[in-house]
Amino acid sequence: LAQGRNKRVRKLLHRMHPAMIAALLERLDAGQRSALWQQVEASREGRILAHLKGDLRRSLAGEAHDAHADEAAAPEHGSGDGISQLEAVRHALEQGKLKRVGKLLHHMHPAKVAGLLEALPPAERNEAWSMVETERAGRVLAYLHDEISAALAQQLDLEDLISAVEHLELDDLVDLIQTLPHELGSRLVHATAGARREQLESMLSYPEESAGGLMNADVIEVRADVQAGTVLRYLRLLETLPPQTDMLMVVDRSGRYQGALRLSALVTANLDATVAELMHTDVVGIPVDTASRDVALLFQDLDLLSAPVVDDRQRLLGRITVDDVVDLIREESDRTVMQMAGLDDEADMFAPVLVSSRRRAVWLGINLVAAFLAAWVIGRFQATLEQLVALAVLMPIVASMGGIAGSQTLTLVIRGLALKQVQRGNIRVLLNREVGISVLNGLLWALVVAALAVVWFGDWGIGGVIAVAILINLLCAALAGLAIPLVLERMGIDPALAGSAILTTVTDVVGFFAFLGLASVLLL
Amino acid sequence: LAQGRNKRVRKLLHRMHPAMIAALLERLDAGQRSALWQQVEASREGRILAHLKGDLRRSLAGEAHDAHADEAAAPEHGSGDGISQLEAVRHALEQGKLKRVGKLLHHMHPAKVAGLLEALPPAERNEAWSMVETERAGRVLAYLHDEISAALAQQLDLEDLISAVEHLELDDLVDLIQTLPHELGSRLVHATAGARREQLESMLSYPEESAGGLMNADVIEVRADVQAGTVLRYLRLLETLPPQTDMLMVVDRSGRYQGALRLSALVTANLDATVAELMHTDVVGIPVDTASRDVALLFQDLDLLSAPVVDDRQRLLGRITVDDVVDLIREESDRTVMQMAGLDDEADMFAPVLVSSRRRAVWLGINLVAAFLAAWVIGRFQATLEQLVALAVLMPIVASMGGIAGSQTLTLVIRGLALKQVQRGNIRVLLNREVGISVLNGLLWALVVAALAVVWFGDWGIGGVIAVAILINLLCAALAGLAIPLVLERMGIDPALAGSAILTTVTDVVGFFAFLGLASVLLL
Repeated sequence: LAQGRNKRVRKLLHRMHPAMIAALLERLDAGQRSALWQQVEASREGRILAHLKGDLRRSLAGEAHDAHADEAAAPEHGSGDGISQLEAVRHALEQGKLKRVGKLLHHMHPAKVAGLLEALPPAERNEAWSMVETERAGRVLAYLHDEISAALAQQLDLEDLISAVEHLELDDLVDLIQTLPHELGSRLVHATAGARREQLESMLSYPEESAGGLMNADVIEVRADVQAGTVLRYLRLLETLPPQTDMLMVVDRSGRYQGALRLSALVTANLDATVAELMHTDVVGIPVDTASRDVALLFQDLDLLSAPVVDDRQRLLGRITVDDVVDLIREESDRTVMQMAGLDDEADMFAPVLVSSRRRAVWLGINLVAAFLAAWVIGRFQATLEQLVALAVLMPIVASMGGIAGSQTLTLVIRGLALKQVQRGNIRVLLNREVGISVLNGLLWALVVAALAVVWFGDWGIGGVIAVAILINLLCAALAGLAIPLVLERMGIDPALAGSAILTTVTDVVGFFAFLGLASVLLL
Repeated sequence: LAQGRNKRVRKLLHRMHPAMIAALLERLDAGQRSALWQQVEASREGRILAHLKGDLRRSLAGEAHDAHADEAAAPEHGSGDGISQLEAVRHALEQGKLKRVGKLLHHMHPAKVAGLLEALPPAERNEAWSMVETERAGRVLAYLHDEISAALAQQLDLEDLISAVEHLELDDLVDLIQTLPHELGSRLVHATAGARREQLESMLSYPEESAGGLMNADVIEVRADVQAGTVLRYLRLLETLPPQTDMLMVVDRSGRYQGALRLSALVTANLDATVAELMHTDVVGIPVDTASRDVALLFQDLDLLSAPVVDDRQRLLGRITVDDVVDLIREESDRTVMQMAGLDDEADMFAPVLVSSRRRAVWLGINLVAAFLAAWVIGRFQATLEQLVALAVLMPIVASMGGIAGSQTLTLVIRGLALKQVQRGNIRVLLNREVGISVLNGLLWALVVAALAVVWFGDWGIGGVIAVAILINLLCAALAGLAIPLVLERMGIDPALAGSAILTTVTDVVGFFAFLGLASVLLL
């Protein structure tokens, strides 16, 4: 029974009489006994101890005393920085003091618990996870990256999982369900009741990366013809507003969105002003199929805290809140950086070695093809290299300068595309500039490298050839750095994903070909 | 006079009598006349036309007619996507139809105007900028990247600049002043009056990248012992609240922060409940010297819309709003990606070619040192290469595989550090994993590359040597990918800036050395 499922053990213990537990403790061997003891609620320890034999009582009482001493120390840990928290938890886990772990986690915000769980290796993570209270587990899941959240959610008993997600905001629940295996996800959907289930199902029908996938249904609607005083009385009846409510939505009889009534306008208004006079009509409804990236730009440009989502007939479906947009922006930037190295940003940093190896191998394989292409170009010039081995020494310099210069242009254009600053209307201008820059930098570094090569090998020919090759490669690098993202964008491929691998291939091939080709023609 | 300073021209024209303008128009040559006409206000065109001679009247009336036809078309343009806006503006600029440009810009949100200005080449940008109304120019400046915003601000006459920034939020004004040359900045400070100036000066004293640099002074303070009804009456007297107000700050007599009163709690409260009962004490004050990166994590984890900033004695200094945090996150992610290519994220995409060349040359120079280091390693083995030229063909493969594998580990660790998931407590675990992954992938790809090399060159020795070299390089790459960011972080250098250049140097040097070294020992 005590095979890691601490939550179930706790539930069973909770139902047992202290005398029964004491008897159970006496029958177990020392290791199991100590593990079981860690799951006993603090309030019942005393009563169980009373039922135990002398020496056993003393040793367990010693542990209990330890735990309480920890408690006094815990707030101190909690106020320390993240490092000491992680170390405290790992230390407690190593000693098997799960009670202390539970107490440490109890004092932390769910976001911090999630961060801590992600920083733990899998075995310890599972142990720590078993000590998170069910009521808080749902919010912790919402803060975890996809892969880890799915794994931890599946460790819970179904009934625990259901009660854990009971109070989750709908958009977070939707995200969670989308990461879970299909069967488990639909069980969660079936476990929700009534109106919540209807909303859940409609939200699940929108694609994840759209306004529909970001929105929440918890809007408060008012009519345009009522007075501010009436609205305030209505709100007082509600007692609490959904979190992150900065505005009420004004709709007409058929549910069409008409404008937004900011709380800040409401509290400063005369009580007899009508909603129509107070509402802002400049907050336009976001169509439900808007790409989430455009939603993020909209929030950023207009400094929105929340925004209404409407269908194609302007009917209000829900609202998007800025906290989800913040998460979205962070995740998107994360993904860009990770994708550039061929990594998955939702993956677990501590996934099993075999799983991670396989994922990364794909990227290595793609780059191997590129490397062999470059090698093949060099292979064409084996005879040249045999006669002049200095070329082999210098050729990586030509390729590497091209790669660096090209990635500068590439990065600039990818960012310009993301910020919509690179558009059909100004590509020509950009092209001229990039070519100009590459010529200037090409001249400068061609001279420097040539001078160094002449000094090193005492051969003016090699200097001349490497100078021309660097100029050519920097020019090609600028053109490729501009063209590759534009072409990928038009093909619907994210330039951040494949751009840099393709670029390096181009600059390697061009660099080797230009340098060795020129040398074989001019120097031999 | 008409040398690009359209704003001044407009001001002068505004003060002149229509007949005078007509006389002026008649005396100018055709090009200048048309340019001047573009600056005449639409409402006065008719009266000026009445003073003109026949054929002149007809030609200018034609242009006026054009402009009005444009106006009808403008909303259509405005609702189109960004591309057509940019093209419409560039088209109008080419034809010298500045009036049309002014109208197009007038219909756009300041953020969009800023985006459009950044997408224009400098000459056209300046022309378009001269058509932005002074009242809106301040907000447009706030949305621009540093370099461009400084350049455009300096183009305005000082008095225009002062009136442009008059209604800017203080935190935006602080950002702007920090980008301007010192003298111009302090003139702007001197031009603000009274309380605003005091706040401005205190905000300028905080470092840009801290909570103090992000905060705004526009808090609304209330006392804990008053009733909700009283607070509501007080807010009604204020008439409007500062933008992005989602909570009032509760302070005691000496200005110490005690808690936050959310508007959503206020509007749902009984009128006789006291602020003390309604306020949230879980929103803790952010110390003014907190790093802005930590502020961003806090907002993200706690889903805040705004947060109080306090000094070391818990006195309330101001508040940070989520819109600035959104900008911060976007900028930070932008900077990371740009820095990895040695670019400055605040720089103008269309800066003069010479300026951009110089900036990028630095990065190329740094990488050149790395490339020469690798070349030097190869140079040590010239004799080996002369005897076995196949080595020269294959050696870039070894270096490139190491570079790719290393950058995967590097990216993972850099992100882990940023999210605080890589900490002293789990580096050992991470190390074991990365070594494990690199051994597995090393074995896999070593075999593949060896097989291909044997097939290509028909030499079992080369296959064996390249296999071992790849294994060694992938192992070193994993160690370097883990160690470099940790060391840089401890030295206080941003790992995203220098990490990848150092890593490539390591993997190149190790790759060439292992491959050529082994070959010279084993194969010759």
